[in-house]
Amino acid sequence: MNLRPVFYVIGTLLCILSASMVVPMLVDLYFLHPDWKVFLICMVTTFFFGGLLILTNKTEKIEIRTREGFLLTTLSWVLVSFFGALPLWFSELDLNLTDAVFESVSGLTTTGATIIAGLNEAPPGLLLWRSILQWLGGIGIIVMALSLLPFLGIGGMQLFRTESSEHEKAMPRATELAKNITIIYCLLTVLCIISYTIAGFKFFDAFCHGLTTISTGGFSTYDTSFINIEGFEDELTCIVFMLLGSIPFVLYLKFIRGNRAALLKDEQVRWFLGLLSIAIIIMSAWLVLFNSLSISDALRYSSFNIISIVTTTGYASVDYNSWGLFPAIIFFFLTFIGGCNGSTAGGIKIFRLQVIYAVTSSQVKKLLSPNGVYTSFYNNKPIPQDVPLSVMSFFFLFALNFTVLSVLLSMCGIDFITAMSGAATALANVGPGLGTVIGPTGNFASLPDAAKWLLAIGMIMGRLELFTVMVLVLPRFWRP
Amino acid sequence: MNLRPVFYVIGTLLCILSASMVVPMLVDLYFLHPDWKVFLICMVTTFFFGGLLILTNKTEKIEIRTREGFLLTTLSWVLVSFFGALPLWFSELDLNLTDAVFESVSGLTTTGATIIAGLNEAPPGLLLWRSILQWLGGIGIIVMALSLLPFLGIGGMQLFRTESSEHEKAMPRATELAKNITIIYCLLTVLCIISYTIAGFKFFDAFCHGLTTISTGGFSTYDTSFINIEGFEDELTCIVFMLLGSIPFVLYLKFIRGNRAALLKDEQVRWFLGLLSIAIIIMSAWLVLFNSLSISDALRYSSFNIISIVTTTGYASVDYNSWGLFPAIIFFFLTFIGGCNGSTAGGIKIFRLQVIYAVTSSQVKKLLSPNGVYTSFYNNKPIPQDVPLSVMSFFFLFALNFTVLSVLLSMCGIDFITAMSGAATALANVGPGLGTVIGPTGNFASLPDAAKWLLAIGMIMGRLELFTVMVLVLPRFWRP
Repeated sequence: MNLRPVFYVIGTLLCILSASMVVPMLVDLYFLHPDWKVFLICMVTTFFFGGLLILTNKTEKIEIRTREGFLLTTLSWVLVSFFGALPLWFSELDLNLTDAVFESVSGLTTTGATIIAGLNEAPPGLLLWRSILQWLGGIGIIVMALSLLPFLGIGGMQLFRTESSEHEKAMPRATELAKNITIIYCLLTVLCIISYTIAGFKFFDAFCHGLTTISTGGFSTYDTSFINIEGFEDELTCIVFMLLGSIPFVLYLKFIRGNRAALLKDEQVRWFLGLLSIAIIIMSAWLVLFNSLSISDALRYSSFNIISIVTTTGYASVDYNSWGLFPAIIFFFLTFIGGCNGSTAGGIKIFRLQVIYAVTSSQVKKLLSPNGVYTSFYNNKPIPQDVPLSVMSFFFLFALNFTVLSVLLSMCGIDFITAMSGAATALANVGPGLGTVIGPTGNFASLPDAAKWLLAIGMIMGRLELFTVMVLVLPRFWRP
Repeated sequence: MNLRPVFYVIGTLLCILSASMVVPMLVDLYFLHPDWKVFLICMVTTFFFGGLLILTNKTEKIEIRTREGFLLTTLSWVLVSFFGALPLWFSELDLNLTDAVFESVSGLTTTGATIIAGLNEAPPGLLLWRSILQWLGGIGIIVMALSLLPFLGIGGMQLFRTESSEHEKAMPRATELAKNITIIYCLLTVLCIISYTIAGFKFFDAFCHGLTTISTGGFSTYDTSFINIEGFEDELTCIVFMLLGSIPFVLYLKFIRGNRAALLKDEQVRWFLGLLSIAIIIMSAWLVLFNSLSISDALRYSSFNIISIVTTTGYASVDYNSWGLFPAIIFFFLTFIGGCNGSTAGGIKIFRLQVIYAVTSSQVKKLLSPNGVYTSFYNNKPIPQDVPLSVMSFFFLFALNFTVLSVLLSMCGIDFITAMSGAATALANVGPGLGTVIGPTGNFASLPDAAKWLLAIGMIMGRLELFTVMVLVLPRFWRP
């Protein structure tokens, strides 16, 4: 294995991380908050290690092969999380290492579960830093899902192999694509911030929420997330940009390049929006019939919170935990679904559900006429032969990881509903769980340290599509 | 579709059901309990309808093709459940139709969830009838899993297609096999009853428990199941015969015919016993360390109750619901696993987990060397090409049914843990759930009627391997 390019890339990522620490430092300076020194020190430290990695591993040609790809993916996410935790660790908030790492991982994986109580009084630089972590994590995952994962063939992502990832000119084309996607991501972020400002947010809050909305992250600058926000304009802005963040970013590129139909013709997007509509209608009907909400309130609350969960953002505009038994269990199962592939959303992801659905229904048909040949389609193209098993293995691994994580969490003394929903919310990178502890109005601070580490590992595994991390524990991986 | 053979077979099954009502009638006569008249009337009624179906649908040759096979399977289970419910409906216990059908379905599917409180004072004929239903359901499912399901190719059961199910001589051979298996089933039942009697049960209790142990059903003649039973001998007898009931019955045939190694060489059996051992060791260790039980008590309680759940029997020898968070979540996930295929046990079943494991691990290997060819094996033979997708579709359908059933149960006003564990225990045909309502010391009586019907449907779907029932709702099934 040639580790030089791996370390080189990680070094570059650390330098980017270090550079982004400038922003919260300047903000703390502007607000005359002493934490600016913390950011300065962390920036220098991160830059030092990043630069060291770059200088010691400089190669003429960056060539990432399969094994290096896996190692790079996991290692970069872990190391960047660790360096991202430094400002949180040393800041005025006085978090311990566990909490700092948990918050940083939750940020970079765009999960949005928080251990900080008292956000309303937290130093501005720190609030901004949390948001920046999510924003970086968001673009990080899109670029990875475009360039690296289809190439590695993770859990059915072969479906999204473009020509570029199989030909000789792979690298330049992938770089070009990543550049364009990054520009779109930045544009959408700016648009989101402006919309929030117009909708009535203070600029600082608009900025922070803008970063965490488009990345479907879900960190808020308020302890109560969107619960005490009055105007519907803010919620609407949030809904629009959560959705925009969960749609494959490649489609925006196609849209801009003139293929106006690309967005609406994409099957993944149609399923995604269809599924959301069904869930919102059922939930609203329930709230009107049994919780005696008005139709407009029911639609408003259920659409915001359902979209927040399914896009794996994790804001809450109401304490849906108190809605009763049926809504709770619906939110629990919605946690798993996730957004579209090639977006910032996590979870099992819509395309996998589509593949599983296609395969299962052709299996059922086959039962009736065993000699028939049934081809399953995705976006009007036959699904390649190796995709179904890959997707279904992913589904199984998700179930397995969910089981193991729930069991381990319960070993830490966590109750049934907190353990189950905690495991789900971590693996799917959503944010809030169910119950009073980690529900939409709770936070993760009171969990034991062991549980926080387990959840952090779950978040990284979920974010990196499970397989990526799991191959690393194979002895076969390390054999020369 | 030729429905004549379908109705003919169902008629035969109803006549068998009717004939078995003689036993509880005689018992009630012996104990001078007035319910003997109920059994007499139900017997005549069932015989009348059974005979009618036989006479009106007599054919020269019983030929069951694919579609008829599906219809037969589901329809026979539904109709036999209904007629089996009659004595419960009209007996002294005064159950309503919902409760009677629930109890009968729970019996025939060998689930063992009960809505009867006050078993200790229940009429003897009725207690016996519940046990007989489970015993009939037990042999019914084995015969079905041997002859019909592999032929229909349900959820990977193609693996168990013997030569006999593909050749011309299929029917006679299958009949021969079914006859031999039935003899073994009867022998094991007698052995079990004798063992219980020696262990200290009264003959009546030994008889009833014998019928429900070997069928991994789990109906008891006591409200508290095995909780207040003192001697360890009874528990040991129970453990042995629960295990014997969850091992493929074909292996006993091979064993008797001289292939002594068959039992221990079978991979499904080895996985099954290995998995049980691991679960028991972990649970015992936990109980010793954190619940301060002695090592012998920990081993005794955890082995009995874990074996009871994994074999999908459902007896309880202790209120493990009060053991705390970790044991509860372990029992929840163990509910899904199930025993071996070709036995009376339900659940996802060991061979499916083996196939999924084999496929997933070859998928992971493939990630590292995409050009390698990996063959997955089951019992030292390569897994046929169509099996993995079939098994994985089953796994997905199980997850989907579990989700839908939990959600529907929660709509009936049932809390999170009862809905989740109720859905799991019904689909896997286990019996008890978690929580105070349907946990090991509770029963299903207090659930709303709608929930009982949902659970009954879940039990039948689970027992018939989901696919069998689900094809019936396809429009394509009914097209000529």
